[in-house]
Amino acid sequence: MRAWMCERDQLQEKFKTHQLVEVVELFHSCYSWVWSVVVLGRSFEVTQCLSCDKQLHMTSMSRFIICISKTRTCGEIGRLTHVTASTSNRQVRAALQAYFHCSRQISSDTMGEYCLTYKDVEEAVERIKPAAHVTPVMTSKTMDGLAGRELFFKCELFQKVGAFKFRGAYNAISKLLEKAEDKSSIKVVTHSSGNHGQALALAAKMKNVPAFIVMQNISPKIKVTAVKGYGATVVECEPGEKSREETKDKVAKEQGAIFISSSQHPDVIAGQGTMGVELLNQVPDLDAIVAPVSGGGMVAGICIAAKHIKPDIKIFAAEPLNADDCAKSFAAKERIPLPWPPDTVADGLKTSVGPNTWPIIKDNVEDVITVTEEEIIKATKLMWERVKLCVEPSAGTAVAAVLSDKFRALPPSIKKVGIILSGGNLDLSKLSTWF
Amino acid sequence: MRAWMCERDQLQEKFKTHQLVEVVELFHSCYSWVWSVVVLGRSFEVTQCLSCDKQLHMTSMSRFIICISKTRTCGEIGRLTHVTASTSNRQVRAALQAYFHCSRQISSDTMGEYCLTYKDVEEAVERIKPAAHVTPVMTSKTMDGLAGRELFFKCELFQKVGAFKFRGAYNAISKLLEKAEDKSSIKVVTHSSGNHGQALALAAKMKNVPAFIVMQNISPKIKVTAVKGYGATVVECEPGEKSREETKDKVAKEQGAIFISSSQHPDVIAGQGTMGVELLNQVPDLDAIVAPVSGGGMVAGICIAAKHIKPDIKIFAAEPLNADDCAKSFAAKERIPLPWPPDTVADGLKTSVGPNTWPIIKDNVEDVITVTEEEIIKATKLMWERVKLCVEPSAGTAVAAVLSDKFRALPPSIKKVGIILSGGNLDLSKLSTWF
Repeated sequence: MRAWMCERDQLQEKFKTHQLVEVVELFHSCYSWVWSVVVLGRSFEVTQCLSCDKQLHMTSMSRFIICISKTRTCGEIGRLTHVTASTSNRQVRAALQAYFHCSRQISSDTMGEYCLTYKDVEEAVERIKPAAHVTPVMTSKTMDGLAGRELFFKCELFQKVGAFKFRGAYNAISKLLEKAEDKSSIKVVTHSSGNHGQALALAAKMKNVPAFIVMQNISPKIKVTAVKGYGATVVECEPGEKSREETKDKVAKEQGAIFISSSQHPDVIAGQGTMGVELLNQVPDLDAIVAPVSGGGMVAGICIAAKHIKPDIKIFAAEPLNADDCAKSFAAKERIPLPWPPDTVADGLKTSVGPNTWPIIKDNVEDVITVTEEEIIKATKLMWERVKLCVEPSAGTAVAAVLSDKFRALPPSIKKVGIILSGGNLDLSKLSTWF
Repeated sequence: MRAWMCERDQLQEKFKTHQLVEVVELFHSCYSWVWSVVVLGRSFEVTQCLSCDKQLHMTSMSRFIICISKTRTCGEIGRLTHVTASTSNRQVRAALQAYFHCSRQISSDTMGEYCLTYKDVEEAVERIKPAAHVTPVMTSKTMDGLAGRELFFKCELFQKVGAFKFRGAYNAISKLLEKAEDKSSIKVVTHSSGNHGQALALAAKMKNVPAFIVMQNISPKIKVTAVKGYGATVVECEPGEKSREETKDKVAKEQGAIFISSSQHPDVIAGQGTMGVELLNQVPDLDAIVAPVSGGGMVAGICIAAKHIKPDIKIFAAEPLNADDCAKSFAAKERIPLPWPPDTVADGLKTSVGPNTWPIIKDNVEDVITVTEEEIIKATKLMWERVKLCVEPSAGTAVAAVLSDKFRALPPSIKKVGIILSGGNLDLSKLSTWF
C-alpha cells in the first residue's frame, strides 16, 4: 500500500504488472485524503492503510483514483480474479480486502448498490459539454448575512430551458443514441407538464430524435406551446396519475418510444449529477450543498458526484412541508410516497422520491429540511428583490431551507454552502397573489 | 513615427530622451489600430502617420498608449514646451502637429473640452476596484433571436445597491477624501429618491463620511428605510424640484456638505464610465453599446471610456418616449430639458440631460432611441421570463430600444451589441398590474 503514495507515473508503472489497474485522474482536495479504487465502474474508498490498518493521511496535495480500464471485461487484483460486470459488489470488496490482508477498511457507501456510479456522472459531464451551459455561481452579501453562512448560488435558472432538467434529458438521449445500432429508430416519451417535458423536447430536437410528451389536458397553454415549439409531439391525457401512466405506456408501445423518466432514469440522474461536479469545480471548498427534492433525480445525482469528489461534504435536501414524502421517508428509513399530487406553490416539487433515487438519498443525504409555503414565498421574493434572480418557487425552497431555524442551528463548521437554484420558470401572472 | 511601431521597451527608451513621454499601458484591440497620445490627461488620437500622412495600419496585435507622466507639471514634445494644466487644448494639438510636421492627423474628439477625460475614468477604475463588483456579462440565445443581433447584457443589477449608481458615488466620495487635507471634515449631500441616494449612502458609510440624502416626503417608505439602513441622514422635503433644490442647498450650507449630483458631477460621470472599460474588457469586439439615458451620467461616462478604447464603437442612448428630452435635444442639437417630472414606468429615467453630460452625449452618441411604455414593460417582462433577470424598467428601456424597429433597421454590421442593464430595484408590488 505504501507504494501507492508515489507519483502518478510510478503508480501507473507499478500497477501495470497487475495488468488491470490504471491511474485515470489525479484529484486535488484541500480537505480529505481518501483513496478511491474503482473496479469496473464501482468505487471503493480506502480510508485506512489496507496492509497495516493505519489511518491514511496523505501529506501531498493530491489523491489518486485508480481504476480498471473500461475496455477490459475482466481483471485481476491479487486474489481477485475475473471481475466481470456481473461480479457482485460484495465479492469485489471481499477480494480487495483479502488482497490487501485487511478486513474492514473498504467501504462502498457512495457507489455500491445504486443504479449509477460516479463513472456515469463523469461520462455525462463529457456528453453534455457541447450542449449545456456551465451555469455561473453567484454570491450575495445580503443573503450571507441572513443565513449566517457563505452561500454560493448555482444558477441553474440560466440553464437551457431555464432549469437543470436539460442536463439529464440531454444525457439520456445522447447515451441512447451512442448505444443504438440503428440510431434513426430511437424515439423517446415522457410525461411532464413541467421543466422535464420542455428539456426532453429540446434535447430531442437537438439530437433529431422524435419526442412524445404526455401532458394533462389542464396544462397551461403556455407550457404546451413551449413543448410544441421545440418540435415535440404533445399527447394529451386526463388529469391524474393513472391516465398519465396509461397514456405514456400506450405511446411507448405504439411508437416504439423509450420512456425517459424525469427523475428515475439512471442516465437522467447521472446528467443531474454533473451539477455537483461543476459546482465543486467552481467552489472546491464547499462544506455542504442544499438542493430541492422532488423525484430525487437531482439530489441523488449530486450525492453520487459530490460525495465521490469530496466525501466529507454534507448534502441536504429541501422540501415543501406540503409535499414532505422525502422527509417522512427519511425519518422512517423507508420510502413512503405521497398521494399525488400535493398542493404547494413549488410546483416543480410535487413528485415523490422514486425507487432508484431513494437508496442514494437514504445513504448519502445528511438531512431533509422542510419549509412552509410562507417560507418558500418569502425566500423566492428575497431572491428576486435582493439577489435580482428570477427564481421559481422550487428553487426558493432550497433558499428557504438554508434560512430555516433548523439549518441555522447546524454547527458553524458548515461555513460554505452551495444552493442549487434549480430553475426560473414560473407563471408571472400568478405573482399578484404574492405581493 | 515609424519608430513608434516597436516594442514597449524600445518605445520607452526612445521617449526617455524627450523626458516627458511614458508608455503606461499596452492595449489590445482586434478591430482598430488607433494610437492615443495622452498629454496631461488629455487624449489625442493618431490615425494617420504624423510624419508622412499615411494611414496607420499596425500589424501587431497591440496598440500603444503613450502618456506624459502625471507627476510632471510641464513637458516637452519637440516644439511643444511647457505644457501645463492651463495650456489650452488647441495649443497642445497645434504643438503636436507641428512637432510631427503634420497638419490634420490629430483629433481630440473624444476628450478635448469636456468636464472629464479618459484619465479620470482610468483613475476611477482603480479607485472603485476594492469596493465595487465587476458585474458579469450574460447572453441569451432567445434574446439574440428576437433582436437579430448578438446581445451582451452588462448586469449592473448585480452591482452593490442593485444599480450602477454605486460606481459614481463611490468614486466621487473616494476622490473627495484623497484630495482633502482634513478628511474628517468631509460631508456629502444629494437629492434622490432612487438608486443614487442609496448608492451615495452606502459609499459614504463604507468611507466613514456623513451623508445627507434629501428625499421627498412622498417617497416610498421602503426607500427611505433603505437609505437610513446605510446610516445616512434622510432630510425630507416637499414634492417638486424647487423644494428639493432649496433643501439640498440649505443642508449643504448648514452642514458644510459637498453636493454630489447624481449625473452631473464629473467624478460621478467618471465612475459610471468604468462600466465602459469593464464591458470592453469582457467583450472587446463589441460594435455598439446601448444604455438608458436620464441625467446622462452613465451614457456620458460610457462615451468617454468606450470611444477612447475603441473609437469606432457606436453608443446609443435609450429613452422613454414619455421622457424624451435627450431625443428632442439630440434632434435640435441643443439641450432642451423637460418639465419635471415626466410620467413613465421607467422611474429611474425621469431626469433631463444636464449641462455637463450634454456636450459629451451630443458629440459621441450615435442616436437616441425612444420607446413607448408598452415596449418598456414588454422588454422588462421578457428579461424576467426568458433571461431570468429581475431588471427594473429603466434597464428594460435599453432592451426595448434594441428590439425596436428603429434599431432593427440599423445595418447588420452592428453585430455585437452591449446592453447596460442599469439596475434591478423595483417595487415588486407593482408587478401585478403588468402581468
